[in-house]
Amino acid sequence: MNRKIIISIALLFVFVYGLLHKDSKREKLSINRSNDWAIALHGGAGEIPPDLDSNLRQSYEQALSSALDIGQEILASGGSAVDAVEQVVRFLEDEPLFNAGRGAVLNERGDFELDASIMDGRDLSCGAVVGIEHAKHPVSAARKVMEKSPHVMMAKYGGELLLDDEKEWAPSDYFFTMERYEQWQRVSEQGTVGLDHWEDGKLGTVGCVAKDSQGNLAAATSTGGLVNKAIGRVGDSAVIGAGTYADNATCAVSCTGKGEEFIRYTAASLVSHLMRYGGRSLEEAAEEVLTHRTGAHSGGMIGVDKDGALLLHYNTSGMFRAAADSSSYRFVGV
Amino acid sequence: MNRKIIISIALLFVFVYGLLHKDSKREKLSINRSNDWAIALHGGAGEIPPDLDSNLRQSYEQALSSALDIGQEILASGGSAVDAVEQVVRFLEDEPLFNAGRGAVLNERGDFELDASIMDGRDLSCGAVVGIEHAKHPVSAARKVMEKSPHVMMAKYGGELLLDDEKEWAPSDYFFTMERYEQWQRVSEQGTVGLDHWEDGKLGTVGCVAKDSQGNLAAATSTGGLVNKAIGRVGDSAVIGAGTYADNATCAVSCTGKGEEFIRYTAASLVSHLMRYGGRSLEEAAEEVLTHRTGAHSGGMIGVDKDGALLLHYNTSGMFRAAADSSSYRFVGV
Repeated sequence: MNRKIIISIALLFVFVYGLLHKDSKREKLSINRSNDWAIALHGGAGEIPPDLDSNLRQSYEQALSSALDIGQEILASGGSAVDAVEQVVRFLEDEPLFNAGRGAVLNERGDFELDASIMDGRDLSCGAVVGIEHAKHPVSAARKVMEKSPHVMMAKYGGELLLDDEKEWAPSDYFFTMERYEQWQRVSEQGTVGLDHWEDGKLGTVGCVAKDSQGNLAAATSTGGLVNKAIGRVGDSAVIGAGTYADNATCAVSCTGKGEEFIRYTAASLVSHLMRYGGRSLEEAAEEVLTHRTGAHSGGMIGVDKDGALLLHYNTSGMFRAAADSSSYRFVGV
Repeated sequence: MNRKIIISIALLFVFVYGLLHKDSKREKLSINRSNDWAIALHGGAGEIPPDLDSNLRQSYEQALSSALDIGQEILASGGSAVDAVEQVVRFLEDEPLFNAGRGAVLNERGDFELDASIMDGRDLSCGAVVGIEHAKHPVSAARKVMEKSPHVMMAKYGGELLLDDEKEWAPSDYFFTMERYEQWQRVSEQGTVGLDHWEDGKLGTVGCVAKDSQGNLAAATSTGGLVNKAIGRVGDSAVIGAGTYADNATCAVSCTGKGEEFIRYTAASLVSHLMRYGGRSLEEAAEEVLTHRTGAHSGGMIGVDKDGALLLHYNTSGMFRAAADSSSYRFVGV
C-alpha cells in the first residue's frame, strides 16, 4: 500500500512537471550568481531532429565552441561587450552551417536579403540593416549604422553606402552555398515558405549577448531570414526591440524563431521592460514572453542580466547554443 | 499678511505646476469616461512657431477637422476601428500639408521613401512597409501586408508587389510638391538633415487611433520621414512597437517625433506594456515614455484605451491633432 502511494505521488509529480514544462525548455545558468563577465550565443532554435547525423551535430558543436572561444577571449582580457557580440556574430556569419552571412538562405527570387542589428546597453545606441545584399558581415554594417550615422535603421542599399572598407563589401555570389540552393529549389517547387521544418531551414539565425567586466551589456543578431521568403520580407533580427535589445539597467537579449511573432510582441524589449517595470527576473521575463506571448514552438532567446546571470530559453525541440562566464562555467548544446 | 501668504502659496503652486509640466503637454481628454467609440489623430508634433500664419493655421485645422469627420462617420455608423484608422490616414496622405503620401519630404537623393504601419488590436495582426516608393497610400500597402501576406514587415519593392489595384500604384512624380522641393533644396544646401526646426519640416507624420463600438482598437501611422534623410533611413513609423501599437487588452497608440528615439525605447508598445504589466493608466504610461524615456522635445503620441478614453500628449511646442468620441466630445488643435 505504502509503495502504491509513493508510486502514485511520483507519477503525479512527473505529470505535473510535464504539464508545467510542456512548451518551454531552458537552462537555468548561473542564475543568481554574479559574474565579472558572461556571454551566451545561439545559432537558431527550431525542430532539430533527434536523429541528427552525428557528424553534422559535431560540426555544429565545434562551430559554436569556436565562436564561444572568440567572445570569451575578448571578455576575459577586458574587452567590451559590443566588440564581443560583434566578433562572435561575424564568426557565425562566416560559417556556412548557419543561416547568416555566407550560407544564408535564398528568397523567392533566389536572392539573398540579410537582416542584422546590434545594441549597446550603455546608452541604448543601436543600429540595424534591413535586406542588405552586399555586406560580407551584416552585423558590422549594423554597427556602422549605430556608430557612423545619426539613424538606427537603414534599408537595402542605404545600409551598404556606409561600408567604407572595400573588404567588407561582397558580391551576391559570396553568400552562395550549394546546400542552400538545393534547399531553396526543394522549397520553392512546393511553393511554400520555410517556416516549420528542419528541412526547410527554419534554423540558423545567429545571435550573441554579453556582459563585460566594466558592467556593460550588448546584444547582436544576424540572419538570412526564411527560405523562399517573399522579396522584401523583414524579420525580427532587423528590428531593435523585437530580435535584439540591450540596456545596462536590465539585460541584453537576442531572439530566434518565428520573426513575425517576435515583432508583434516586441519580444526582446518586452523582457527588458518586464524586468524594469514589472520587477521580474531575466528568467521570469523570458518565460512570460516565450510561454504566454509568442507562444508554443515560436523559437528561443538568449540573455544576460546586469549581474551576469545567463539564460538560454526556447520552446522548440532544440536550439544551437553556447554560454560561458568568468566563473569558468562553459556550456555548448544542440 | 494673510493676503501675502495666499499670494505666496498661489505663486508657489504656479511654480511647482510649471516645473512638473515643463517638458510635457497634454490634453486630458475623456479620461475615466467610458465611450462607445472614440478616435484621435495627429499630423505631426514639433516646434510649431507661435506666429504661424493664420491662413496656414486655418488650412491645417480644416484638414484635421475633415479627417476627423471621416473617422467619426465610420465609427458612429458601426464601422471597424481598422477601417477608420486606414481611411483617416489615407485622407491625410492625400493632403499635401502633411509629410505623408502626396507632399512627403525628399531624401538626400531627392527621392521619396515612405514608411507606414497599421495594427489591429483584436489579434495583434499588423503590417508595415519600409521605404516604399510607389504606393499612393502607404497605409493601405501596410494593410495589404497585414491581411494578404504571412509577413508583417516588407521593405521597398517587396511592399509594392502586394499592390493588386493599379489605382493604388503611383509614379514618383505623384508625391512631388514644389514647397517640399524648395525646402529640400534649402536643407540640402546646408548639408543638414531636417530634424529640429519647423522650416526643416520635422512635422507632418500622420497617424490615427480608434476604438470602435465593438470594443476593438486599431492604430496606423504614415510618414515621408526626415527632409534630406539618408537613402534607406527607416523611422519609427514603419516599426510595429515603436511608432504604432494596438492591443484590445490595453490601448492603441501612434507616435510622431524623433523616430530614432521612439525605436530605441519601443515607445508605442512600451505604453501598452506599462498598462498591461505595470498597472498604469494610458495617461501615466504615456507620461513615463515621453518624459522619462524618449525625453524632452522628442515628439508626441496619441492614444485610446480599451474604455475609449483618449490622450493627445506631446513634449514639443505643438502637435497637429484632433479627437472625438461618442459622447459628442470633439476637439481640433494646432
